[in-house]
Amino acid sequence: FCTVFVNGKFCKNPKIVTAEDFFRPGLNVAGDTSNPVGSAVTAVNVNNLAGLNTLGISFARIDYAPYGLNPPHTHPRASEILVVLEGTLYVGFVLSNPGPNMKNKLLTKILQPGDVFVFPIGLIHFQLNVGKTNAVAFAGLSSQNPGVITIANAVFGSDPPINDNLLAKAFQVDKKVVDYLQSQFWWDNSYRLV
Amino acid sequence: FCTVFVNGKFCKNPKIVTAEDFFRPGLNVAGDTSNPVGSAVTAVNVNNLAGLNTLGISFARIDYAPYGLNPPHTHPRASEILVVLEGTLYVGFVLSNPGPNMKNKLLTKILQPGDVFVFPIGLIHFQLNVGKTNAVAFAGLSSQNPGVITIANAVFGSDPPINDNLLAKAFQVDKKVVDYLQSQFWWDNSYRLV
Amino acid sequence: FCTVFVNGKFCKNPKIVTAEDFFRPGLNVAGDTSNPVGSAVTAVNVNNLAGLNTLGISFARIDYAPYGLNPPHTHPRASEILVVLEGTLYVGFVLSNPGPNMKNKLLTKILQPGDVFVFPIGLIHFQLNVGKTNAVAFAGLSSQNPGVITIANAVFGSDPPINDNLLAKAFQVDKKVVDYLQSQFWWDNSYRLV
Amino acid sequence: FCTVFVNGKFCKNPKIVTAEDFFRPGLNVAGDTSNPVGSAVTAVNVNNLAGLNTLGISFARIDYAPYGLNPPHTHPRASEILVVLEGTLYVGFVLSNPGPNMKNKLLTKILQPGDVFVFPIGLIHFQLNVGKTNAVAFAGLSSQNPGVITIANAVFGSDPPINDNLLAKAFQVDKKVVDYLQSQFWWDNSYRLV
Amino acid sequence: FCTVFVNGKFCKNPKIVTAEDFFRPGLNVAGDTSNPVGSAVTAVNVNNLAGLNTLGISFARIDYAPYGLNPPHTHPRASEILVVLEGTLYVGFVLSNPGPNMKNKLLTKILQPGDVFVFPIGLIHFQLNVGKTNAVAFAGLSSQNPGVITIANAVFGSDPPINDNLLAKAFQVDKKVVDYLQSQFWWDNSYRLV
Amino acid sequence: FCTVFVNGKFCKNPKIVTAEDFFRPGLNVAGDTSNPVGSAVTAVNVNNLAGLNTLGISFARIDYAPYGLNPPHTHPRASEILVVLEGTLYVGFVLSNPGPNMKNKLLTKILQPGDVFVFPIGLIHFQLNVGKTNAVAFAGLSSQNPGVITIANAVFGSDPPINDNLLAKAFQVDKKVVDYLQSQFWWDNSYRLV
Repeated sequence: FCTVFVNGKFCKNPKIVTAEDFFRPGLNVAGDTSNPVGSAVTAVNVNNLAGLNTLGISFARIDYAPYGLNPPHTHPRASEILVVLEGTLYVGFVLSNPGPNMKNKLLTKILQPGDVFVFPIGLIHFQLNVGKTNAVAFAGLSSQNPGVITIANAVFGSDPPINDNLLAKAFQVDKKVVDYLQSQFWWDNSYRLV
Repeated sequence: FCTVFVNGKFCKNPKIVTAEDFFRPGLNVAGDTSNPVGSAVTAVNVNNLAGLNTLGISFARIDYAPYGLNPPHTHPRASEILVVLEGTLYVGFVLSNPGPNMKNKLLTKILQPGDVFVFPIGLIHFQLNVGKTNAVAFAGLSSQNPGVITIANAVFGSDPPINDNLLAKAFQVDKKVVDYLQSQFWWDNSYRLV
Repeated sequence: FCTVFVNGKFCKNPKIVTAEDFFRPGLNVAGDTSNPVGSAVTAVNVNNLAGLNTLGISFARIDYAPYGLNPPHTHPRASEILVVLEGTLYVGFVLSNPGPNMKNKLLTKILQPGDVFVFPIGLIHFQLNVGKTNAVAFAGLSSQNPGVITIANAVFGSDPPINDNLLAKAFQVDKKVVDYLQSQFWWDNSYRLV
Repeated sequence: FCTVFVNGKFCKNPKIVTAEDFFRPGLNVAGDTSNPVGSAVTAVNVNNLAGLNTLGISFARIDYAPYGLNPPHTHPRASEILVVLEGTLYVGFVLSNPGPNMKNKLLTKILQPGDVFVFPIGLIHFQLNVGKTNAVAFAGLSSQNPGVITIANAVFGSDPPINDNLLAKAFQVDKKVVDYLQSQFWWDNSYRLV
Repeated sequence: FCTVFVNGKFCKNPKIVTAEDFFRPGLNVAGDTSNPVGSAVTAVNVNNLAGLNTLGISFARIDYAPYGLNPPHTHPRASEILVVLEGTLYVGFVLSNPGPNMKNKLLTKILQPGDVFVFPIGLIHFQLNVGKTNAVAFAGLSSQNPGVITIANAVFGSDPPINDNLLAKAFQVDKKVVDYLQSQFWWDNSYRLV
Repeated sequence: FCTVFVNGKFCKNPKIVTAEDFFRPGLNVAGDTSNPVGSAVTAVNVNNLAGLNTLGISFARIDYAPYGLNPPHTHPRASEILVVLEGTLYVGFVLSNPGPNMKNKLLTKILQPGDVFVFPIGLIHFQLNVGKTNAVAFAGLSSQNPGVITIANAVFGSDPPINDNLLAKAFQVDKKVVDYLQSQFWWDNSYRLV
């Protein structure tokens, strides 16, 4: 997808763009939160909206069942700005390692509708619905292809699995605990392109 | 605002960040659309949420009275991705000049709730509420300080005004028409930081 | 156009570059200013000089008949630095919106030969020949594909036209004034690649 | 730290630089691997070598005791290129989430001295010494301030701790397992500036 | 120099900008070419025009006496686009090293008034006036602080000098030749800020 | 080489990546220093390790025979951070031109094993083995395709050669000296991809 009219790249055969190239429906539909964590991310990025290419921006809707969790994850290529539409969210992120004998600092906040919160690029963050009703949030991300890494699945549910002795040492626990964690793998169906 | 923990810049005296540095309330409140164009933009960017500094992202809520208009404008430093929450919006943007004897192409689309649309960096764009009820949209922008230039105000309502002979030649109209346009200046109270 | 020798991108089949790839003649020839605004821009950018690809720079010559105007326009993807070669130019640009109840500030200056002026990325700017003779300026732009948006043509002469009720509301004028403005469309033949 | 002679930023009072500003000793000394994971990272970045500011590069030495592990971690602001100097390393990284019903792919490789491996920005990666002797690696990172997030410590050892019910849901395990994981917190003394 | 209105950086105390901040006179005056190489560069960049800060562009005028030479040099932080105003210039640049047993390719061109030529970032380039009259060129550079490194002076005229044995080995010549080259140092007065 | 999983670019047909795409052996082997300057650079960059594409990092090993020299050179697209593994190196770089009547400042340092030194982007730098034994260094570079320009070869050994009268003027020496320098051209076999 390439056109001289909307970005700074040279195109030998620029595409004639139409409004459809910059359009994607579907963020009115709540994601299906009937999964183990009770949340669902519906994303609009360059993979389903080609007009975003080179523009450095994308968007997502996040739905949370009561007590639903968007589990700790990172975006390897984007910062995120989130706004709550409905419900009450407990959100947080963990700063990067500060040095020897210091713990990673956790910053948290309880958000109500209309509250905005920022998750800087690459940091581990989460949102938990702490209300009795569904919650909804929207988020802007600073890349057309931000990526997402759900920590639980990437660490304990990869294909093939990470060696359990290795993980036992990483987490300083008995290997049986790692095996249990790995056995609890759940298909992360909470992320979809609309 | 500067800290070694969340961005790539060197800080001689890094600030100890707290959750408050990444938080801003207020996007639940509808903007006041009782202005000439019948729309209101409520923005969250580095000017009211310092934690956004260097992160390349910001956010806005846009309210539209029935038939309210977010008038033709540009963001000099950001692309925008917009999603409709309520109402029906007629949106569009104009491509940059294609060359001699060719008109600037206008791309438009009618959006319903949940529809997403992209406005590439620097291009003139607008949204018009074409429904009988209020409309609301949210937008992500690819800069912590995107800026906004309302064409009508920048061209016909600047301080001091642009010379009317100059504008008469630019728009190929009688100077009296320019004087009329300049006299119709309205205070653009449709944009505020929350 | 892609070669491992002059930029940082990977090329599967790098082109063997020659001096011709970095060369373009023609900026000695004055542009044809016999158009409604009395100015002509002759541009050298990645669309007619492929060697500029990825290099973040381009160039233009601007000719002005006596009282000729390079009308208010923006470059969506570049800042501009302009130097006057001949004649006397009245130049200006309008800052982005400063906030409620504040007008967009206009900065202007009269330039003589040898004077240099800067137009920051995305801001509306113009140059007017205020002398009785032809004027000439050269300009560097901070993108190999800066784009140009002539405000008058993009707003009142697009294809298809922007709805006149919409524009009447945007400019707070009677729809007949908009219709008049739209009827005064002129082909913007003032911009060409050499 | 700011000087007009070595980078593109404007300095009101540029520092007179000396060779000392671009120098840091100490990477000949093995890090102390007598910690729970048996590895040690010795880093040279903008926090201990100010001349790196704005230059987009930093460096690290990694030491591994026999069977020592540089545990799963990310760099939120940098890609990494690693070369083995001594010993045999089993290395790997996990790709970002591929979509519903697909697992995160794990890529691994056994490296011998002289072998080079790349860890793309923001992805979870690790190195394990699979030999009976000490191992040593050097790494370049694409930021002067790359940051590091040790997953185990950031998730299970932050200050304050992440809520254990939240983590139990994230990892789909009993809360007692989370409590056990959190109790196994180890001071991550494996990272130091030289 | 910092203002929220013209760039994307956060300013605690933004400067109130005026037109003077974006203005610099003087490129109508020919540089003084009465120096050993017979050329003079007059530069407008962030060091004498603060409004250029963060904008990624600068400008220069180059004067050449008959047979005057802008000697081989690089810009460590910018690509350059040059246009000839008067005279005939023989210009060229040398590609970076292509690999073993291959010479660095030299690309050259003779330019007449109006001809445009591109020198990619960091490559060694030169211009020689091959006509009997003065020559003048203008150039745009893709950085507000491009820097310049005159090869002869940087290699053979630095303070302190580079060791002559070292240079003798680098150029594979007798040390006496290096001493002669070093003794021929000329003050490079050909570069000035206007 | 293009995949949606490790970088921010859109790929129509993303490659299924494997560990091999991020792997390259060979930096354990000393480069062949039996060349005129007595040094050898072995590079790992996007030209021999495609997984580096878009990641902004590459790596090199540099070997030095006793008194071997990595001769004055620049990287047109990268800063460099170097660490000494074995031997004693005298290193230096020359700052860009400081202005009229000022010499380019040379910064130098003698490095022992474990010492780290930085060469900012585009500046001329060198390393000389001042010990009686072989020396080895490793270096990270802030581009996947940094390029290298050996000054001696680019200036005096290009294909075709730079005109000797031009070089005589540039270096302010007799043309015979230039002819001698050009005749001393040596094949720069000191740079190779592993």
